[in-house]
Amino acid sequence: MKTKRKGLVIVYTGKGKGKSTAAFGLLMRALGQGLRICVIQFIKRETGRWGEVKTAQKLEIEWHKIGDGFTWLSKDIDESAARSHHGWQLSQDKIASGNYDLVLLDEFTYPLHFGWLDTDQVIDWLQANKPANMHLVITGRYASQALIDYADLVTEMTKVKHPHDEGYKAQRGIEF
Amino acid sequence: MKTKRKGLVIVYTGKGKGKSTAAFGLLMRALGQGLRICVIQFIKRETGRWGEVKTAQKLEIEWHKIGDGFTWLSKDIDESAARSHHGWQLSQDKIASGNYDLVLLDEFTYPLHFGWLDTDQVIDWLQANKPANMHLVITGRYASQALIDYADLVTEMTKVKHPHDEGYKAQRGIEF
Repeated sequence: MKTKRKGLVIVYTGKGKGKSTAAFGLLMRALGQGLRICVIQFIKRETGRWGEVKTAQKLEIEWHKIGDGFTWLSKDIDESAARSHHGWQLSQDKIASGNYDLVLLDEFTYPLHFGWLDTDQVIDWLQANKPANMHLVITGRYASQALIDYADLVTEMTKVKHPHDEGYKAQRGIEF
Repeated sequence: MKTKRKGLVIVYTGKGKGKSTAAFGLLMRALGQGLRICVIQFIKRETGRWGEVKTAQKLEIEWHKIGDGFTWLSKDIDESAARSHHGWQLSQDKIASGNYDLVLLDEFTYPLHFGWLDTDQVIDWLQANKPANMHLVITGRYASQALIDYADLVTEMTKVKHPHDEGYKAQRGIEF
């Protein structure tokens, strides 16, 4: 086993529940170990309602919301693309700053998947500029093969069973 | 869609990373929504070192450690069984108390899998005694079909790629 420290690139992907949730759990772990954290959230579903945002505020975790609700599904493609570019610019600034031990790009796979950002350019930039000891966590469905190849640790969340299948609504504190 | 509130039974299983991590993320979300939380951790790996325990303390989350390191792999079977029974008794007390909105039984699949606890008896007890609105979260590999049948939401974490494959050691703040 190599014993050197290495900033890992971690991807949580797949169609199952628990991708962003696992990333938020990682924040708890990292924070407890004194790591300096920055979160950039590329999809914002409902303003200020997310339980994890409230807890992150309590923990004084730096947290940026870029996305605008369900815009990836909307007709306003220019708006979505513009937001993606703004979010990626902010991400580059934060990553290159050297001020963080862990940066989470939450739901970052979507702007890549929908083509608002160019995957190859993003990976090239990360390979050239990500601090070697900084951990980078990326969540979202549809992680591309190029992103998987770039990552060190990739977990796919697979839905085995979901209560929406039984007709239950999303539960406060559990799904948001 | 049914619109009633329901306490979900959530299982994170599989061989990939992110099971307990997703559960800890769920705690962040639930706490931010004001849910009352109790955690019972069935495997304790290294005393006091886990980042999430430190953060949970900061957040004043009730947290019980039952397990004794890697005892599931040890020769001392009686000790492991005794600890399992103690942990399950505590879990029953906490669940039946009605004092919690979410109870996490972390790595609870192992005492079931190794037979220290009887899965059918555990599920029978939960079906009879778990408060209807209380969420129950169970993590660990080897979730049995009976447990999956009982659960509302089951996610399997599958390893796509892991840095240990490349020979890197566990990273502080990421894996512990």
